[in-house]
Amino acid sequence: MRRQAAGTEPAAVFRLHYVVPPEAARYNVNMAKTGMTHLDRTGRARMVDVGDKPETKRWATARGSVVMRPETLAAARAGDLKKGDLRAAAELAGVMAAKRTWELIPLCHPLALNHVDVSLEYSDDLPGVVITATARTIGRTGVEMEALTAVSVAALTVYDMIKAVERGARITDIRLIEKHGGRSGDVVLEE
Amino acid sequence: MRRQAAGTEPAAVFRLHYVVPPEAARYNVNMAKTGMTHLDRTGRARMVDVGDKPETKRWATARGSVVMRPETLAAARAGDLKKGDLRAAAELAGVMAAKRTWELIPLCHPLALNHVDVSLEYSDDLPGVVITATARTIGRTGVEMEALTAVSVAALTVYDMIKAVERGARITDIRLIEKHGGRSGDVVLEE
Amino acid sequence: MRRQAAGTEPAAVFRLHYVVPPEAARYNVNMAKTGMTHLDRTGRARMVDVGDKPETKRWATARGSVVMRPETLAAARAGDLKKGDLRAAAELAGVMAAKRTWELIPLCHPLALNHVDVSLEYSDDLPGVVITATARTIGRTGVEMEALTAVSVAALTVYDMIKAVERGARITDIRLIEKHGGRSGDVVLEE
Amino acid sequence: MRRQAAGTEPAAVFRLHYVVPPEAARYNVNMAKTGMTHLDRTGRARMVDVGDKPETKRWATARGSVVMRPETLAAARAGDLKKGDLRAAAELAGVMAAKRTWELIPLCHPLALNHVDVSLEYSDDLPGVVITATARTIGRTGVEMEALTAVSVAALTVYDMIKAVERGARITDIRLIEKHGGRSGDVVLEE
Amino acid sequence: MRRQAAGTEPAAVFRLHYVVPPEAARYNVNMAKTGMTHLDRTGRARMVDVGDKPETKRWATARGSVVMRPETLAAARAGDLKKGDLRAAAELAGVMAAKRTWELIPLCHPLALNHVDVSLEYSDDLPGVVITATARTIGRTGVEMEALTAVSVAALTVYDMIKAVERGARITDIRLIEKHGGRSGDVVLEE
Amino acid sequence: MRRQAAGTEPAAVFRLHYVVPPEAARYNVNMAKTGMTHLDRTGRARMVDVGDKPETKRWATARGSVVMRPETLAAARAGDLKKGDLRAAAELAGVMAAKRTWELIPLCHPLALNHVDVSLEYSDDLPGVVITATARTIGRTGVEMEALTAVSVAALTVYDMIKAVERGARITDIRLIEKHGGRSGDVVLEE
Repeated sequence: MRRQAAGTEPAAVFRLHYVVPPEAARYNVNMAKTGMTHLDRTGRARMVDVGDKPETKRWATARGSVVMRPETLAAARAGDLKKGDLRAAAELAGVMAAKRTWELIPLCHPLALNHVDVSLEYSDDLPGVVITATARTIGRTGVEMEALTAVSVAALTVYDMIKAVERGARITDIRLIEKHGGRSGDVVLEE
Repeated sequence: MRRQAAGTEPAAVFRLHYVVPPEAARYNVNMAKTGMTHLDRTGRARMVDVGDKPETKRWATARGSVVMRPETLAAARAGDLKKGDLRAAAELAGVMAAKRTWELIPLCHPLALNHVDVSLEYSDDLPGVVITATARTIGRTGVEMEALTAVSVAALTVYDMIKAVERGARITDIRLIEKHGGRSGDVVLEE
Repeated sequence: MRRQAAGTEPAAVFRLHYVVPPEAARYNVNMAKTGMTHLDRTGRARMVDVGDKPETKRWATARGSVVMRPETLAAARAGDLKKGDLRAAAELAGVMAAKRTWELIPLCHPLALNHVDVSLEYSDDLPGVVITATARTIGRTGVEMEALTAVSVAALTVYDMIKAVERGARITDIRLIEKHGGRSGDVVLEE
Repeated sequence: MRRQAAGTEPAAVFRLHYVVPPEAARYNVNMAKTGMTHLDRTGRARMVDVGDKPETKRWATARGSVVMRPETLAAARAGDLKKGDLRAAAELAGVMAAKRTWELIPLCHPLALNHVDVSLEYSDDLPGVVITATARTIGRTGVEMEALTAVSVAALTVYDMIKAVERGARITDIRLIEKHGGRSGDVVLEE
Repeated sequence: MRRQAAGTEPAAVFRLHYVVPPEAARYNVNMAKTGMTHLDRTGRARMVDVGDKPETKRWATARGSVVMRPETLAAARAGDLKKGDLRAAAELAGVMAAKRTWELIPLCHPLALNHVDVSLEYSDDLPGVVITATARTIGRTGVEMEALTAVSVAALTVYDMIKAVERGARITDIRLIEKHGGRSGDVVLEE
Repeated sequence: MRRQAAGTEPAAVFRLHYVVPPEAARYNVNMAKTGMTHLDRTGRARMVDVGDKPETKRWATARGSVVMRPETLAAARAGDLKKGDLRAAAELAGVMAAKRTWELIPLCHPLALNHVDVSLEYSDDLPGVVITATARTIGRTGVEMEALTAVSVAALTVYDMIKAVERGARITDIRLIEKHGGRSGDVVLEE
């Protein structure tokens, strides 16, 4: 997990944006040449045809945070400590949403996930919660959208559960951490 | 819309977190006393019973961003300029997701939205896109989750469309802007 | 061309297209002035805000056909005669789809239907089946999309059940028959 | 695309129904012998067991129209020209519905589409819009229902967007154009 | 909650079937006269039109069990004790399914629930778990199907979580406990 | 089908609980050692990773009942005799729900069913209806949850259709009958 010295501001999170490992950077450069795969040459939105890609093992991990005030974090943790339901609800909502990613994102391919794992950790540094999701499949298309959707919906569920205490909480810094399998091979954006 | 001088870092976004207007701050303090409404006294997750709340006009606005590299933004804008489909796909995905919020968030109440508006704007300052969503209903429960869900799914759709160009883009700073109607009255977190 | 003995009716169906009763014609003229309600002045797709419309009783009836060869119709009828399942499957699929119209049509409002009725009749004249659906609600928005969706999905279900016998069957002539309630009052397109 | 001389009536659309190539005709004859695959010998609706079919590349194209008055077509085109959202909304709704075909049609098999393409063209001849959809998969069952569902829901979306201008528009002539892969091989109903 | 002396067999559960309080019995007799409301006079399945019913507060409670071997119950309890996730997953699945009842049950009306509560208790007497669900709305139609669906899906979730330990567990005795509001008034089937 | 001598009480159903064939018993013992596969060592709910399991042909059969009074059974049968719609609605609802099992049960894997069969039989012995469902796939995970979900939703549909006549009907004794394929091989719980 990303570590921050106590007292660093959440803003620091953005710095990692530029810590793209060289191979991924090269990959992205190549991709940039091919352009927007979801817009055809005329600019029309389209679903990519993955029928000629081989079925390979693919997995992806994404992460994001809900930043809140220290008091809210304390209240969430205290309420959750009793039965674990804040964490359980967010994690289960993330898992269930990952399975439905293709219903939500217009040009995503339907795929049968072999595994989804969503885990929520409390962070005094943020302060808030950090949500990490990993999705796995054996298929013709990557699962980064599934991992990102799991994080997003788990984060929305956290917001829903704390919103009576703090409406100003923020869902932030949702990004891909790593991605494996498929033509692009191993892409690691954060260690 | 939130304005940033050219060159400010996206991190600045977080500063607004503390710009909670006095009445909202008071409101939150009161809410804090009532604690986590989605966890009962034993810590068990529960859906709030809204049967005794009156039906009132309610609306909420949420906002969030997808931060990307200037080259990606330029490519997105160029592709989108041709037919508008990047913007249209993200906005429609946000509208459709808002209507299904209660399917995604475990303890959200089903409600019949009267209106959802999602709009995407390109921002050179971020650089990236800013997504703003407003949801409206006449009902017994607020619609901030619907607005936040619209922003989140629109942002995921943007990521999906640009990911072949830049996998390191970030969905960030999703927060409630304002909320009206119901017992809590007018809550404005950002002007 | 689909052949019909002189005097068979279905072809006549098209003629009715122009038999719009005067009040509906006037209504349409007025509507034409307001233009495309789902596109705003800039051409952006949007959901209409119905929050200021009163809740009124509304209902709509739609109709459509699946045209097939006489042999296919005979086989469908024969198979169906045994248990009624071709008809029952199509009717139930139509009812279930009507309830989910707002999930399918991007800018449709979610609404709670009070009633949906879908009925399938065999027609030697077409030859084929005629599907009629009526949807009812008490709400702020009309239910013609629900009636049309019910007809469409019932028709697709019929096609699915006969496609092993005839792939060339056609789903055709799906149109609104009448519509009541709301600001536009009674609109009757076919008697 | 199907061409019509200016001024022909929409009814002309039906003529193509008999342009079934010989091999497809033979195929249909064979199918007719096997009867209704979705009704068992007792007439009970059933899902066909496809477990013994091999996984093959399959694709299907379907087409259909929304017939409207010239003034409506002009208004739709004018509104759409600004941002392209009428076309984009209809196409995206078609793509999203294709992915959910198995949820809508009771006896359809769930399948993971590799590709869906939906395109809308304006036609002065109809007058109206022509919608064409192609679905592709590698699987044990054909994708004609997915292509037909995409066309149907895209057409319903067009109706929804123009209905304030003309309630009498008709969704018509939805049919399979061609189908490839699987036991039935290549079936071409229209060139 | 229903009490059983230690050692009674789950079969005893059935005896309660006849403990229908007099007023409910009378109610049922009246209902029997009106016959199957979901089959019209010709036997065709239909959705009841509730448009003429007034909106009233309605609530219903249902209950059911998953009966398992004592060792399985011990293992479930032990695993659950650590984090509470077996209970939380079953309860949340029940809540989420209740909201989607109208999508699952063909002739159920869509309705906006104001509240759903699902709770799981371990029972050494069964041995197994007892699931109780209460649904509330203000509407034109009762919510017993929502309460029963919540119990059913929570029970399926329990089975899913213990099935690796005991495939022979049974979901049993799902029934309505009480129902309030609407034309039928208060119906109490078990104290 | 499970046979009962005339006059035996439904309670007898429970006795079968212990008629687990030796090989299944051994299987379950082994499973018991591995414990709750859906709870990790810390008690957190998790989806099992099936990525390393081979794709094999798998099928499972489940069964359950709706127990009602003889008069209700007579009324259901009489109404159903006319068009078969009570049976057809329950069977189709079961088939459609089986396809959506993974949406309902939080930790279930999405899978593409090759076949689902649901059949309803009237039983004077219960009295009531017995519902049997079989699900088939070629995949990495078993389909017992799909068969059990089909039975449960078909049973809920029956309850929905008879509830105006008898609110005290019970959905009972839903259990796995047999299961084939995968690592656990053939498991037969009832002959």
